[in-house]
Amino acid sequence: MRITALSGGVGGARFLRGVLRALERSAEPVDLTIIGNTGDDITLFGLRVCPDLDTVLYTLGGGIHEEQGWGRADETFSVQGELAAYGATPQWFGMGDKDFATHIVRSQWLGQGQSLSQVTARLADRWGLPARGVTLLPMTDTPVETHVVRDDGSGPQAVHFQQWWVKEHAAVPAERFVVAGMDRAAPAPGVLDAIRQADVILLPPSNPVVSIGIVLSVPGVRDALRGTSAPVVGVSPLISGRPVRGYADACLSAIGVESTSRAVAGLYADFLSGWLVDEAEDLSAYADLPGVRVLPRPVLMSDLDATADIARAAIDLADAAPVAQP
Amino acid sequence: MRITALSGGVGGARFLRGVLRALERSAEPVDLTIIGNTGDDITLFGLRVCPDLDTVLYTLGGGIHEEQGWGRADETFSVQGELAAYGATPQWFGMGDKDFATHIVRSQWLGQGQSLSQVTARLADRWGLPARGVTLLPMTDTPVETHVVRDDGSGPQAVHFQQWWVKEHAAVPAERFVVAGMDRAAPAPGVLDAIRQADVILLPPSNPVVSIGIVLSVPGVRDALRGTSAPVVGVSPLISGRPVRGYADACLSAIGVESTSRAVAGLYADFLSGWLVDEAEDLSAYADLPGVRVLPRPVLMSDLDATADIARAAIDLADAAPVAQP
Repeated sequence: MRITALSGGVGGARFLRGVLRALERSAEPVDLTIIGNTGDDITLFGLRVCPDLDTVLYTLGGGIHEEQGWGRADETFSVQGELAAYGATPQWFGMGDKDFATHIVRSQWLGQGQSLSQVTARLADRWGLPARGVTLLPMTDTPVETHVVRDDGSGPQAVHFQQWWVKEHAAVPAERFVVAGMDRAAPAPGVLDAIRQADVILLPPSNPVVSIGIVLSVPGVRDALRGTSAPVVGVSPLISGRPVRGYADACLSAIGVESTSRAVAGLYADFLSGWLVDEAEDLSAYADLPGVRVLPRPVLMSDLDATADIARAAIDLADAAPVAQP
Repeated sequence: MRITALSGGVGGARFLRGVLRALERSAEPVDLTIIGNTGDDITLFGLRVCPDLDTVLYTLGGGIHEEQGWGRADETFSVQGELAAYGATPQWFGMGDKDFATHIVRSQWLGQGQSLSQVTARLADRWGLPARGVTLLPMTDTPVETHVVRDDGSGPQAVHFQQWWVKEHAAVPAERFVVAGMDRAAPAPGVLDAIRQADVILLPPSNPVVSIGIVLSVPGVRDALRGTSAPVVGVSPLISGRPVRGYADACLSAIGVESTSRAVAGLYADFLSGWLVDEAEDLSAYADLPGVRVLPRPVLMSDLDATADIARAAIDLADAAPVAQP
């Protein structure tokens, strides 16, 4: 079974680890292609940082800081401390020494003319992903960066997504998101094929606006999802209208969408076949989405086994779900 | 007293620390300008590394690994370990995490369009050099790199100086040195003025070929030394014909010069006024260098106090020495 998944960072990576565990439990061979969001990418200290791709690599490769959900386990912080001593900025994006090495080698390889796809494949080799049947693709090889237009009192200003998210904790309401570079972006090699040739397509409970939404905005991706014969099954990132972590509600608010699982499903309505929502969800809200099979069940990824249960339910729902009609 | 010194890495930095100690002992104000060799510079993992400048910064700033003579004290090696895990090369140039931070911030600032002089001044700020009356100038802002032509059995081949020195331990005889970029190089801002306006010019016991020799090869530097009114006093890097550390003898051999203090003085004969040599030296060898006042004395930099004694002797010799005639 060829599975293709779109993914953001922490939530997506944890869900995908659940997918691998679910397949392992049933002794199914793994053929998983992950299309990772690169809108969060940022150049810091002259180094290219791809937070969502790294979180997927570290999580699936066994190097993740478990409690934190991002960054490496057993980190030291000599580099960041020295950069601060030199007065290098910014200091609000914390990176450990091991994590820095990833950014250094990525930047080195990019600087040698390799594409982000090629670099990501080399990084994935080190983390053992291909050996496990997993391919990680950046959504695009074109450098893109999500910026947030927000007004902190001095007028509307666009800042990098990471500044709004990491430094400002999304405290100042976003007015809109602008993805610099997206007008010139093309899907990375393999992205459209992974959507067209999949047996199942999964949308993890990643942020529907700044993670999944950014992947969907890569020219051609949404059309491929509408046109594929594979069922597309998503897992709602909201429980009782609130994100388990992060600021999905603030992101939804910025694009004028309610913080409900039903409203998030609406963002995917043109290609969605199945939708896993929290068991407390009121299903009557989905009456006007007849093409989508909605399954209420526990969707809190409380540990790996619970996450594997969710992943299994999503895969099984794909088998059962009708394919949405374009 | 305005002192200007040319310098390589470990030996030069230790000598300069002795100069500062000597001035401190006599409560003299410090006005020291250091012209550092950048021929050893190398781009590793996409980062610009300036080993000699860094050794001067770390040594004078109190951050040096004392026993090693280069690199930072209390280092960890997470970054290098991760780079190895990613298969990044080369692995023969060991850099600690704190050291990496210097290369990261330098590369960042260079990438922003700042000159190596400007970047070096910012790094020196962090290490407190300006506050102590010390200015560190790179010999040039033009990227230059010393390459070594040597034949390891497969025919003559040029490799970066660091490969020959650090990886190969100068084991394969060098046929010649080629400084890539030097034809386009100009002295960095302040370099020629520091030579012309000095009261004393010091040549530390740095490698006469690949450190001092490279600084001298920057267009204009040698002419400035010939033309300055300041006495130029050097300290021989050889004791009993052998370098205390490093491979100065292998370097001298490559340019067809004997490994003797007398032969090294010959390399500087057109501007040298004073020359400190080991006390066991045979002074009759200098009979044909009448413009140079030769002072035999202990020149082993065994500790900081001994080094300060050597520095003091060099400064005093400058007062006593005739200025070499062009």
